[in-house]
Amino acid sequence: MVLLLYFCRKSITMSLLTVGTVAFDDIETPFGRAEKVVGGACTYISWAASYFINNIRLTSIVGGDFPKDELDQLQSKGVNLDGLKVIQDGKTFFWAGKYHENMNIRDTITTDLNVLDDFDPELPDSYTDSEYVMLGNLTPDIQLRVIEQLTAPKLIVLDTMNFWMDIAMDRLKLVISKVDVLTINDEEARQLSGEYSLVNAAKKIFEMGPKYLVIKKGEHGAMLMSKDDIFYAPALPLAEVVDPTGAGDSFAGGFIGYLAKSGDTSFENMKRAVIYGSTMASFCVEEFSLGKMKNLSEYIINDRVQRFVNITKFDI
Amino acid sequence: MVLLLYFCRKSITMSLLTVGTVAFDDIETPFGRAEKVVGGACTYISWAASYFINNIRLTSIVGGDFPKDELDQLQSKGVNLDGLKVIQDGKTFFWAGKYHENMNIRDTITTDLNVLDDFDPELPDSYTDSEYVMLGNLTPDIQLRVIEQLTAPKLIVLDTMNFWMDIAMDRLKLVISKVDVLTINDEEARQLSGEYSLVNAAKKIFEMGPKYLVIKKGEHGAMLMSKDDIFYAPALPLAEVVDPTGAGDSFAGGFIGYLAKSGDTSFENMKRAVIYGSTMASFCVEEFSLGKMKNLSEYIINDRVQRFVNITKFDI
Repeated sequence: MVLLLYFCRKSITMSLLTVGTVAFDDIETPFGRAEKVVGGACTYISWAASYFINNIRLTSIVGGDFPKDELDQLQSKGVNLDGLKVIQDGKTFFWAGKYHENMNIRDTITTDLNVLDDFDPELPDSYTDSEYVMLGNLTPDIQLRVIEQLTAPKLIVLDTMNFWMDIAMDRLKLVISKVDVLTINDEEARQLSGEYSLVNAAKKIFEMGPKYLVIKKGEHGAMLMSKDDIFYAPALPLAEVVDPTGAGDSFAGGFIGYLAKSGDTSFENMKRAVIYGSTMASFCVEEFSLGKMKNLSEYIINDRVQRFVNITKFDI
Repeated sequence: MVLLLYFCRKSITMSLLTVGTVAFDDIETPFGRAEKVVGGACTYISWAASYFINNIRLTSIVGGDFPKDELDQLQSKGVNLDGLKVIQDGKTFFWAGKYHENMNIRDTITTDLNVLDDFDPELPDSYTDSEYVMLGNLTPDIQLRVIEQLTAPKLIVLDTMNFWMDIAMDRLKLVISKVDVLTINDEEARQLSGEYSLVNAAKKIFEMGPKYLVIKKGEHGAMLMSKDDIFYAPALPLAEVVDPTGAGDSFAGGFIGYLAKSGDTSFENMKRAVIYGSTMASFCVEEFSLGKMKNLSEYIINDRVQRFVNITKFDI
């Protein structure tokens, strides 16, 4: 009976919709530079999630200049690309950024929207019944357009940033009112709520709609909050951080990938998802672009999760 | 037999030497101001430690203007004041500071050393056999002078700050070479070691002498590191932080107070000490001066420790 239940549980295959940019990045950090490497929120999210679930439906847009090999690699990891628009005579979204000494601050050097400028994410029919949905950082209107097409969402997670709070707060709040989980950093939580204390900020944000808030604090870890509970996970102290680009997206991918795999959206399970998300982020920053993210395994991931267990456990 | 061992264990009364400033503070924060309130590293350390151990030996200096009632309160908590010099015609050390909106940055408005200018900490004979020693932030030369008088130290913990790294690095390094545990914040660990990664910073600092390093990260928690182990404790997310003054000292007092009480300097026990230290710091910041620190109990402390357990535990 126990065995039967186990197999029943394993046989659940949740669907995960990932939405966001697929991009080229130029990146400069104190440790080196990378030119025209593959990036984009949706790319990091999908790669990170692919270690947990193989029913991923990617929604994005690229130009004809985007390498087919990169798409083949995603497909081989179980990522469906029916929702990826390829504009043959267009150019892929391009971002160039430079990180300061402390890696927490970055300057945007260039943002060429290119094909992203006309992105209207019409979901393929096969995507509309997606149960788990990860809305990567994008224009609130595009995020809203995706939500409106969903027929049976079980959990919608939204990532966004201060840029949209600055220029499109009302539209952003409309999106926020329709999601279950919001992931932002500590400064963004303060900006969104007008509260300095993160405890008070969370209270205000729950009034806007979401039931859960994940506050990403980079090297200081991540906090998961609900109306009744708080969970504070550290970041893994790393000897070398090469490139922070995509860390938040890799967190999001690991977080929702783990949730979709387990089909369990309880607070207790979300705590585990935060640990898996933090684990994926810790890999992401160790190399430029997807260098590390493409070469992981269940063994490597679980080994690092165990390091999280080791650095946090204490008996009182 | 088990019972006997239990009582033997309880009967151990370790001695704790606390060294640092006893001061008056003027404090301005976004939430209000307090004028000429009692402060100073040694005051916070001793109050915090007093909830764990009653064999505390305070070493400091004040002027005739320091209220006798404050000293009586310390004595009633089991703090021995034989090592407190009172310069009747002198004035107590005075510090005035102003905190910015985010409470992590503060400007020093005034520093009047007064009697501290001539502080030469000659330990009373009854103090020299102290087993646990907490050297609060002070001139490295004064800290050195205390260490030289100790006959049987079991654990010396040193707190310091960037100010001494700026003006007296060599003398500070000499002190660091003689202690077991160093407590500093993340920026100070970077300045001291010349390494940005805290993992690499710790390696350099261990080469300087200490066996343990505690990196205090304020609202982001604290990390305990040894050559082989890392423990990362979060800070308790608080709805209101009224005044951060003395938080690091309260951490230090709770940390060493717990260690002295248990007489156990293993890494496992230091992890518990970090949790108790973080707990004392979380109380400290909730009111100006020692408002909260003077009115705690074992019950209140243990209840908050349980909150730390609750926000950090997860099962994977």
